Amino acid sequence: MSSELGSGRDTIEITADLLSVDEAVKTVTSPTSGAISLFIGTTRNNFDGKEVTHLEYDAYIPMAVKEIKKICQDMRKKWGVEHIAVWHRIGHVPITESSVVIAVSSPHRKASLESVQYCIDTLKATVPIWKKEMYAEGEGTWKENKECSWGTSTPS
Amino acid sequence: MSSELGSGRDTIEITADLLSVDEAVKTVTSPTSGAISLFIGTTRNNFDGKEVTHLEYDAYIPMAVKEIKKICQDMRKKWGVEHIAVWHRIGHVPITESSVVIAVSSPHRKASLESVQYCIDTLKATVPIWKKEMYAEGEGTWKENKECSWGTSTPS
Repeated sequence: MSSELGSGRDTIEITADLLSVDEAVKTVTSPTSGAISLFIGTTRNNFDGKEVTHLEYDAYIPMAVKEIKKICQDMRKKWGVEHIAVWHRIGHVPITESSVVIAVSSPHRKASLESVQYCIDTLKATVPIWKKEMYAEGEGTWKENKECSWGTSTPS
Repeated sequence: MSSELGSGRDTIEITADLLSVDEAVKTVTSPTSGAISLFIGTTRNNFDGKEVTHLEYDAYIPMAVKEIKKICQDMRKKWGVEHIAVWHRIGHVPITESSVVIAVSSPHRKASLESVQYCIDTLKATVPIWKKEMYAEGEGTWKENKECSWGTSTPS
């Protein structure tokens, strides 16, 4: 799904498919932008000193898309960015694979560098996406992102 | 060419070949890192209100590699990053293609986000790479990066 804001294009995807960094870069590439900044969140093999085998993600998709759209609007207000792609994976995400890919293009580098950091920080704080670490010795519990302030409930 | 610093790996390339973002991501991906940040510099179709057809880059390669290695060392001192890739293209770079790709992995996101910004800012300020805008109406002149403080000479 995508929406137009100003002259730029926002591409927001929440999917169980593999995320392609090359596709995200193509989506935001523009002849009028000289800079593309990206953030990729990948599954680490450890958490709190315990061995992690993979992560599981779930999302309340309509609300997640709505919140990500708000973040894109904020990014356009604060920085002169051109195109934005925010892709989040749900389901089983193995070690080293990507759970989130954010790509931002802008004419000059400062806007894309600063806004991509704002985007991931705000996504972690406001978007209803749940994560569960799956450990080598027993599974974890579903939890909202610990940076979140939007509630304490977990998906049923 | 690459060099080991601490437990991380620095991969530095200055090449006339196309730069692959997917390859850069693979180069820094690690099971112990949960974050990868990238900066990509691409050729814009305009500069100072004039139409640009492409860019030409040249570098004093041994010195450029040495200076980029210093930047990588600084990044390791200041942030807990894992792997770093800094790839710069020389020669003809068409509109929308990449002249520079920087990728950094780290266990947590703050280190890779902040250090990738430091890397491109410092690269622009210290690394002997020259750029020439090629305009639709006549060609530009070779110039050192305007953020540079390391001299005023141009390559012969």
